[in-house]
Amino acid sequence: MRKDINGGVTAAQGFRAAGIHAGIKKKKKDLAIVVSDLPAAVAGVFTTNKVVAAPLVVDRVQMEKSPRARAIVVNSGNANACTGEQGMNDAWRMVETAARALGVARTEVLVSSTGVIGKTLPMDKVVSGVSAAVPLLSRKGHADAAEAILTTDTFVKEAAVSVRLGGVDVVIGGMAKGSGMIAPNMATMLAFVTTDARISPAVMQDALRLAADRSFNRISVDGDMSTNDMVLLLANGAAGGSEITSTNDPSYAPFYEALEYVLTRLSKMIVVDGEGATKFVEVRVVEASTEQVAAQAARAIANSNLVKTAIHGEDANWGRILAAVGYSGIEFNPADTEISFGTLPILKKNYAVDFSEVEAKKVLAEKEIVITVSLHQGNASAAFWTCDLSKAYVDINANYRT
Amino acid sequence: MRKDINGGVTAAQGFRAAGIHAGIKKKKKDLAIVVSDLPAAVAGVFTTNKVVAAPLVVDRVQMEKSPRARAIVVNSGNANACTGEQGMNDAWRMVETAARALGVARTEVLVSSTGVIGKTLPMDKVVSGVSAAVPLLSRKGHADAAEAILTTDTFVKEAAVSVRLGGVDVVIGGMAKGSGMIAPNMATMLAFVTTDARISPAVMQDALRLAADRSFNRISVDGDMSTNDMVLLLANGAAGGSEITSTNDPSYAPFYEALEYVLTRLSKMIVVDGEGATKFVEVRVVEASTEQVAAQAARAIANSNLVKTAIHGEDANWGRILAAVGYSGIEFNPADTEISFGTLPILKKNYAVDFSEVEAKKVLAEKEIVITVSLHQGNASAAFWTCDLSKAYVDINANYRT
Repeated sequence: MRKDINGGVTAAQGFRAAGIHAGIKKKKKDLAIVVSDLPAAVAGVFTTNKVVAAPLVVDRVQMEKSPRARAIVVNSGNANACTGEQGMNDAWRMVETAARALGVARTEVLVSSTGVIGKTLPMDKVVSGVSAAVPLLSRKGHADAAEAILTTDTFVKEAAVSVRLGGVDVVIGGMAKGSGMIAPNMATMLAFVTTDARISPAVMQDALRLAADRSFNRISVDGDMSTNDMVLLLANGAAGGSEITSTNDPSYAPFYEALEYVLTRLSKMIVVDGEGATKFVEVRVVEASTEQVAAQAARAIANSNLVKTAIHGEDANWGRILAAVGYSGIEFNPADTEISFGTLPILKKNYAVDFSEVEAKKVLAEKEIVITVSLHQGNASAAFWTCDLSKAYVDINANYRT
Repeated sequence: MRKDINGGVTAAQGFRAAGIHAGIKKKKKDLAIVVSDLPAAVAGVFTTNKVVAAPLVVDRVQMEKSPRARAIVVNSGNANACTGEQGMNDAWRMVETAARALGVARTEVLVSSTGVIGKTLPMDKVVSGVSAAVPLLSRKGHADAAEAILTTDTFVKEAAVSVRLGGVDVVIGGMAKGSGMIAPNMATMLAFVTTDARISPAVMQDALRLAADRSFNRISVDGDMSTNDMVLLLANGAAGGSEITSTNDPSYAPFYEALEYVLTRLSKMIVVDGEGATKFVEVRVVEASTEQVAAQAARAIANSNLVKTAIHGEDANWGRILAAVGYSGIEFNPADTEISFGTLPILKKNYAVDFSEVEAKKVLAEKEIVITVSLHQGNASAAFWTCDLSKAYVDINANYRT
């Protein structure tokens, strides 16, 4: 029933987007606008970092004032974080500038920024950029918008699906940026998702929180967490049909699954594009007592520098995996634990190790690697996505500002 | 009153040591014995990893059976971790072999192992190694012993002090190994400390726990935590004087301070020798509400890959430091936070940034860097020691087993 389609953040009916070079960065596109032709229900999840960038403070206020929005304005090249009162004024001015240019209410505009911390926004460029972007808004603008939100990313991240809900075809589509500082809790990660489904803001907020927990919060590049992370979801109801007002609605489950699917696809793209990444790694913890236990163990493995460098070196160092589970904080019996790389068993119960180094090397030489850890304590499982740790990561991050 | 002296783990009266090549490693020394001529009070702290190597299980049993010990036997090249029942049998056999060779009770021998996880010990080599080492035990054997406990370390780590307690000169001295997987909670970190002070096991255990918390648990190379970490402290009372039986004893405070000093010196050597480290970094969080808050913030900064790569690149990226405090979980006001590199102010209150990049680069070009973060919320402080993250770290850990 679910079908992958093109169109990213404007795949759903009634959304237009644009992305331009406003001059915040030297040459690359750096300003994006996404607009809904109808007032859209809005849901959002934000960084848990105590240092919160100005646009996130503004968006929380906006979402409290009104559960509907018409536009999102995003700039890259400058995070507007740790910029104090000036930063707050600038974020509000971004809202006002866009509201005026688009002819919508000030309460209906959300803003987002990503880039260097601690420098104030060049507001003249933001203001003229918004004016320049508005006439370019179109159904085809999704690719430009997806490009304009990138920082050290090396490719555009878009995904969209069509799904049938209660006799109506509904689309969910979005764009994301990731790269540096990707960690659990969505570090320096932005995602903007739109849908033409009819769904109430409260139900949509629940769906977004759970789906983000199982996608963006399960990826890790380096364990850091940023000041600017956010995921915003707009639903304008343009597809028609009856409104989903409860998680018991028969349309809720397929809507949720399609949303989780889109977020997971964007999450995996972020990992593939992790700074210096040469391998995509899925860490699956299975036969755990609860999903929370499985996720906690998978997170420790995925965040371990020692595991990530071993994978980079294509070294079947299962001891580091077991040690990471050991310090993850979960209750488990190490002697019951089994580990496989791909379909190749590496560690069996009671620490029985009997694998061919040649076979293991072959699995680890692949670009995509699945590590499965079975705890043999229950039926729950969780997956976590990460990449290897390479010398290129050090190169990229040793001289980020210069 | 406190004086640095030579002699490492045999600096205190009544201790002898030896270190030899038993054949567990190809060429390097790999077996050490430390012996006390008198029964010594023993205290120990062990890894918090749920995956615990066999020798740690054995030592806990030994310490429950008897609060006194006569000898510690350590091998490098093999961790005896994740080795199941065979590993437990081997660890007990190491105890028995040493007890027989030394002519001491089986309850008086402690064992320790470090090296690769998941391979059983070559017991023939361990047994013949113990026999070969015993005749070599001497007051001068500290350097050989300190060499025999190393793995990827590039230099021997020893420290000792003399301190006057209640009219008696007392010595505390020790040796350590570190390098890979160094993290809070003493990852793959071994330290063996001896003293001729007279102190009861219970009081000594309290002192060791607190001093280890403020030294070994405040260093970080890569945030991983190992299965084999331990710190053992033996006190044989050979210096004479009255026994310290309470923390209220006037001799307790100077004893504790000397112990913390020795452990801190060994900790800093471990950081300096961190895998691929090119810079030593002290992270000081000051004006915090409590020491625990200060340590939690300092730990997050010291463990951040992004902070460590920025320091490697000599880039004054204070935003990453503030972001790390932000996700450390402490309560604080980002706008009140101030950051200095060395004596150079970088970030002042209300995000005021006004420093010369040239000056900052000069500070960061040093081999030893002090980062001070002031939270302006109280009078407590804590220091954490770490190193930069370099490409050499990736090299060393990508191919550790091969």
